[in-house]
Amino acid sequence: MLLSRYLLPVMKETPADAQIVSHQLMLRAGLVRQTAAGIYAWLPLGLRVLDRISAIVRREQDRAGAIELLMPTIQSADLWRQSGRYDAYGPEMLRFQDRGQREMLYGPTNEEMITAIFRDCVRSYRDLPRTLYHIQWKFRDEVRPRFGVMRGREFLMKDAYSFDMDEASGQLSYYTQMLAYLRTFEAMGLRAVPMRAATGPIGGNLSHEFIVLADTGESEVYYDSDYEHLNWNQSAFDYGNAQDLDAFKRMFSHMYAATDETHDLRAWEQVPDERKKNGRGIEVGHIFFFGTKYSAAMGMHVQAKDGSLVTPLMGSYGVGVSRLMGAIIEANHDANGIIWPEAVAPFDIGLINLRPDDAACAAAAHDLQAKLEAAGRSVLHDDRDARGGEKFATMDLIGLPWTVTIGPKGVAARTVEVKRRATGEKQEVSVESLVAGLAKSDTMGAL
Amino acid sequence: MLLSRYLLPVMKETPADAQIVSHQLMLRAGLVRQTAAGIYAWLPLGLRVLDRISAIVRREQDRAGAIELLMPTIQSADLWRQSGRYDAYGPEMLRFQDRGQREMLYGPTNEEMITAIFRDCVRSYRDLPRTLYHIQWKFRDEVRPRFGVMRGREFLMKDAYSFDMDEASGQLSYYTQMLAYLRTFEAMGLRAVPMRAATGPIGGNLSHEFIVLADTGESEVYYDSDYEHLNWNQSAFDYGNAQDLDAFKRMFSHMYAATDETHDLRAWEQVPDERKKNGRGIEVGHIFFFGTKYSAAMGMHVQAKDGSLVTPLMGSYGVGVSRLMGAIIEANHDANGIIWPEAVAPFDIGLINLRPDDAACAAAAHDLQAKLEAAGRSVLHDDRDARGGEKFATMDLIGLPWTVTIGPKGVAARTVEVKRRATGEKQEVSVESLVAGLAKSDTMGAL
Repeated sequence: MLLSRYLLPVMKETPADAQIVSHQLMLRAGLVRQTAAGIYAWLPLGLRVLDRISAIVRREQDRAGAIELLMPTIQSADLWRQSGRYDAYGPEMLRFQDRGQREMLYGPTNEEMITAIFRDCVRSYRDLPRTLYHIQWKFRDEVRPRFGVMRGREFLMKDAYSFDMDEASGQLSYYTQMLAYLRTFEAMGLRAVPMRAATGPIGGNLSHEFIVLADTGESEVYYDSDYEHLNWNQSAFDYGNAQDLDAFKRMFSHMYAATDETHDLRAWEQVPDERKKNGRGIEVGHIFFFGTKYSAAMGMHVQAKDGSLVTPLMGSYGVGVSRLMGAIIEANHDANGIIWPEAVAPFDIGLINLRPDDAACAAAAHDLQAKLEAAGRSVLHDDRDARGGEKFATMDLIGLPWTVTIGPKGVAARTVEVKRRATGEKQEVSVESLVAGLAKSDTMGAL
Repeated sequence: MLLSRYLLPVMKETPADAQIVSHQLMLRAGLVRQTAAGIYAWLPLGLRVLDRISAIVRREQDRAGAIELLMPTIQSADLWRQSGRYDAYGPEMLRFQDRGQREMLYGPTNEEMITAIFRDCVRSYRDLPRTLYHIQWKFRDEVRPRFGVMRGREFLMKDAYSFDMDEASGQLSYYTQMLAYLRTFEAMGLRAVPMRAATGPIGGNLSHEFIVLADTGESEVYYDSDYEHLNWNQSAFDYGNAQDLDAFKRMFSHMYAATDETHDLRAWEQVPDERKKNGRGIEVGHIFFFGTKYSAAMGMHVQAKDGSLVTPLMGSYGVGVSRLMGAIIEANHDANGIIWPEAVAPFDIGLINLRPDDAACAAAAHDLQAKLEAAGRSVLHDDRDARGGEKFATMDLIGLPWTVTIGPKGVAARTVEVKRRATGEKQEVSVESLVAGLAKSDTMGAL
């Protein structure tokens, strides 16, 4: 991508109304623009990150056997009357009438709708268990939207719903999603800790929230340092295997983790001192197992093997997809800007041409862009007529993992300067070795 | 994908309330379910098609140099007051108040919002021309929603917006999108004809709509048969080249095309009789060039090279992404069900195991699924305990391009039956030649 043909409105000044660093950096780096209170447009660079985050969430849901569908944003109030939640839900629900005076709402969540769909589509135990998910925009009319996409009104959420014939199968579905969540966050370069949570208005008695560790996080958290040594994606737990899931459940359930709201001093004392860690974190996911709360209220029955009618057990599993972008930035930035983990970076490489007016430099830069793209790397090529200092500052601000700089001296010597954003390390390398290294390696880290 | 773990609620009966064939087939094939009047949930199979249609639209927009962003669904009424359209827009606009009594709306289109974003982000002629697009849900509160996704209330649209410094550049942007549209529809296996259109409330004096030819279409169309011989994706028109775009414009502008609303008998008489064609069609896209209508009303100015302030010229370009699914089905079906073009099929291959209870058949079917998937083909494997007749009928109904059938006789002989949905042709082939043929060829058609 040529920056001269892109839309990247970066800001030098920190916007006065942005209180937290992720909000400031998302505005400054040209990722989003606010279009109404708590409602954002995703500019081209921000959308690329949002798409990469969504793709990781989707991949891990698919691996865990969940099936993707897509429910609409607008729902009928009648649906919510079937579960009894229409009157119970607070003013965060955006309610309105359509032109036929029918009561409608913008979905804040989809328990009712998925229950109605499953109820109307499925008749037999043969069609269970099933976990269905979608990635769709939600609206919650926060009284005081703030912190950018961290507490916006229109936000992107992945919500999954499980349907099982009995408690044991339901618990398998629950822990399958829990494992998928830990793998999802880890794949984005985040360290997430699951914590027992209250269930609130969703219902049920089994619930966990997932807190991403970040020094600038909203909540204080207390946890066992063993969490920092676990690697969920390397672990051999197989989603289809009940014994594996049981071992997984035991593995984390003996480890302490709590936010300041749920902190239990007595249990905390049992953690060996050298493993006691506390820090700050941001909630990025919440999962619930609530049994027959919605299926019973909405009259969902399926025929069991013995011919009897069974009311399926359900769980629901949410990830704040747009919120994750804020959390990733809170956990990955410095004074100069964002430091994207490679897995979610909007482009792999920023390519700076220091002298676009010089024919040899321009030819070398376009040639290198083509070679890097042919090697499967995404490149943002700063070919603008601007000062070098401005170009370097922009690349640091938008936080691409690698910056490759071409100038007249390097063109003569067939070398470029490669800088790693995370560490600031720079090295001169030949164009050939840069391209060959990229073609061979899966991650840029191998450079 | 194993059908025994999927969600595919097909229906044998034609739903009484579905009047047109695409609506009937989308319900019967388990692609969508209505959740409120004119509002649909996309079931897993339907979402796969929607994603493939979106991906083709996105690829062709990107090739044409348009930049993707994503605007929110909810907009502020204030934005529409700046253009003067808030009061002018009819009851199709879904209006409501948020909890702070601010007037809001669910966007039916995004001219105002993109104009405000561009106005606030861009200052200089260096940042033009630019065409920006998004693929986002829209809401239009139709008084009588009908025909399934063809005239729904919540629908997915690709809308692009161009910004140019002068008329000549603006026309280039307009014809660039027109060429991208013809390539987009053709890539989905559709034959689309562009027709001059009235501009209506969007404004301006240059507009075309795109009609997909289908015997069951809503409008009568009259066109020059030369359209049937053009191949836009093979044509060498280069988007960046003004002469190419001019040649492209001349190429189609001498050819007659009109709907019954705009049919001009005098011009029609000039078409040689042997090239006069008439038939039926469905509108799937509409493009407009409206100059400074929104940029002037909303105070957008950019600095020209000479330092003067210029009000950019704009166009807007819509494709009904969810509507296209209906149009594709209208153009591609028979008495047994849908016949998906390969480019948008939800799976490439339906794999039927006639005897899932037979260990040798089951092993052969799972092995073949793995080999086909390793060759890059998507497979829906019917491993259910059901009659062969039901399995064949389901595959015909959901319209996958190829059905591969495994049974006990074939397992003994290492052969399978391959059926092409579009023609009904069947052949016995060896498993080895099937897999080898697929690994070699880009399209299934080479089998």
